[in-house]
Amino acid sequence: MEYLNKEVILKSYPQGIPQDQDFQILDTKVSDALNPGEVLIKNLFMSVDPYMRGRMTGRRSYVDPFPLGEALTGGAVGRVIASQRADLPVGSLVNHFSGWRNYFVAANDRSDLKKLPEISGLTPEIWLGTLGMPGMTAYVGLLKIANLKSNQRVFVSGAAGAVGMLVGQIAKIKGCYVVGSCGSDEKASYLKDELGFDQVINYKKAPIRDQLAKVAGEGFDVYFDNIGGDHLEAALDFMKDFGHIAACGAISQYNATKSVAGPANLMQIVAKRLTVSGFIVSDHSELHDEFVRDMSGWLREGLIKDRTTMFYGIDQAVSAFRGLFLGENTGKALVNLEN
Amino acid sequence: MEYLNKEVILKSYPQGIPQDQDFQILDTKVSDALNPGEVLIKNLFMSVDPYMRGRMTGRRSYVDPFPLGEALTGGAVGRVIASQRADLPVGSLVNHFSGWRNYFVAANDRSDLKKLPEISGLTPEIWLGTLGMPGMTAYVGLLKIANLKSNQRVFVSGAAGAVGMLVGQIAKIKGCYVVGSCGSDEKASYLKDELGFDQVINYKKAPIRDQLAKVAGEGFDVYFDNIGGDHLEAALDFMKDFGHIAACGAISQYNATKSVAGPANLMQIVAKRLTVSGFIVSDHSELHDEFVRDMSGWLREGLIKDRTTMFYGIDQAVSAFRGLFLGENTGKALVNLEN
Repeated sequence: MEYLNKEVILKSYPQGIPQDQDFQILDTKVSDALNPGEVLIKNLFMSVDPYMRGRMTGRRSYVDPFPLGEALTGGAVGRVIASQRADLPVGSLVNHFSGWRNYFVAANDRSDLKKLPEISGLTPEIWLGTLGMPGMTAYVGLLKIANLKSNQRVFVSGAAGAVGMLVGQIAKIKGCYVVGSCGSDEKASYLKDELGFDQVINYKKAPIRDQLAKVAGEGFDVYFDNIGGDHLEAALDFMKDFGHIAACGAISQYNATKSVAGPANLMQIVAKRLTVSGFIVSDHSELHDEFVRDMSGWLREGLIKDRTTMFYGIDQAVSAFRGLFLGENTGKALVNLEN
Repeated sequence: MEYLNKEVILKSYPQGIPQDQDFQILDTKVSDALNPGEVLIKNLFMSVDPYMRGRMTGRRSYVDPFPLGEALTGGAVGRVIASQRADLPVGSLVNHFSGWRNYFVAANDRSDLKKLPEISGLTPEIWLGTLGMPGMTAYVGLLKIANLKSNQRVFVSGAAGAVGMLVGQIAKIKGCYVVGSCGSDEKASYLKDELGFDQVINYKKAPIRDQLAKVAGEGFDVYFDNIGGDHLEAALDFMKDFGHIAACGAISQYNATKSVAGPANLMQIVAKRLTVSGFIVSDHSELHDEFVRDMSGWLREGLIKDRTTMFYGIDQAVSAFRGLFLGENTGKALVNLEN
């Protein structure tokens, strides 16, 4: 039997915010006539993440650029619908890196393909968000990289994003005072009223530094930076001595078409004896089991709330991705590919 | 008996490079009629250091601003010439923080006043340079903050300065490959031919990034930053993954009269998983004994060479200080106050 498949091809490296014409949806067919060791997977959900923008350039970053003319890749959750592998029978829920398509055949040497446990009360797509890469990024960045302690004061930028939302909630679990920044009043209310952030600022309303000055109090022990640019500059001015900055990303820069100057106050790093640590979650896989244990426990206890902005159908994948840079999504942005 | 004393007063906070008119030399008299517990000290050498510029502003940095209308302070070495303290008899060599003057009376509650050992072969002024604050800054920054390992690749900016010169030499002792930057061909030759730096670039000859590209090879494990600005930006592009930047200072910024934008490539901190650590040597006094033991050993073995740009007489103190920012000094800048 053959399945009608669609996959998203990268046609050109975007200049600035990615546009529809940088992508193309290709119709293909995928057969269930498998060789030994192969499985046929139907994707249920695919992830769009800001780091993917960094791969849509001709320059090598910490991962290779996406090749032009080929289907994009990224985190996804699917179900095995035909199998020549005893360990992955039909019906298995799997996590893998072949997003941006409906169906695909995976050979038996696929190291990214992992069978997921089916835990009652947990949706399959949670493995792309709270129990997936964004959740682990928040967990590792806050607890390992920034070495957060109970009762510290934390500032997180991009606080309504997939990672930021979890950073704030983990910090609250640890008894910290949490200030977040986001780009709309609606998001700000959600973070404060639903997730228990202590203070939230809408950076679109007034200069971030002025707003941060009003809520910083004695300053921050930890800044979790998803944004870079003016957020980083403001945060530097309100760090406490010996504070720690976990540098997770700089979404404010990802679509820059020309060089954007950095903060003018980096001397604060010396004066305040700050440590700024860049990190990438995939370097810390030794913490994965501990992360899943803690995070699934927090979810069960209701200490962590999950939130998703869901798009439907692979035709919406590019819109979902663009939305990351337009501030349109709250929480984890996913594309539902079930139908 | 009374001694004719001169001391350097800060008249106004400099705008840009400090000018003669920002300072005033005051004539006073100091008497040897001491109260119990007091000692009278004649200064032999005083230190001028870049960090002092940070105290010549109305803004609080990590230390309080120098008050206007009062004598400046800073590291100095002197000799006790009258004493009411049994532990500091006449003739004792002492290290203290009352530089920028010829004579002063120290009460017995002076925590900065320390008796120095007289070690044959070591000049008194070495306690202001190689065995003093600059030496310990190099030692702590390289070995503790940047956690330097044998055979790593090191870049140090301001390499002909008091700290940078020692950073390079310590790194060579540890078997590292060392690249330095400085501001004249004469300094570059000295660093390479006399101190054994592997490569030295003169940043005044061509853009620092272009020159660094030619000598960076596989990149740097450690960057010891004394300069900030374009040096930091260039270094970020040539760090190896998981590299460490010891942020010691940013002399390129100290005299800025308006806000100077920072590096445009801070995203390298994330992409390369760098750690940037600001530090101030006075936070690490627990390492002082270890530092003196190691550094004096290296001096004895001829593994570290000491170099000083000496100015003579307190009337030259402001010139010595200005020279720090004009690139005029090589090695430690000191003012000889013996006569």
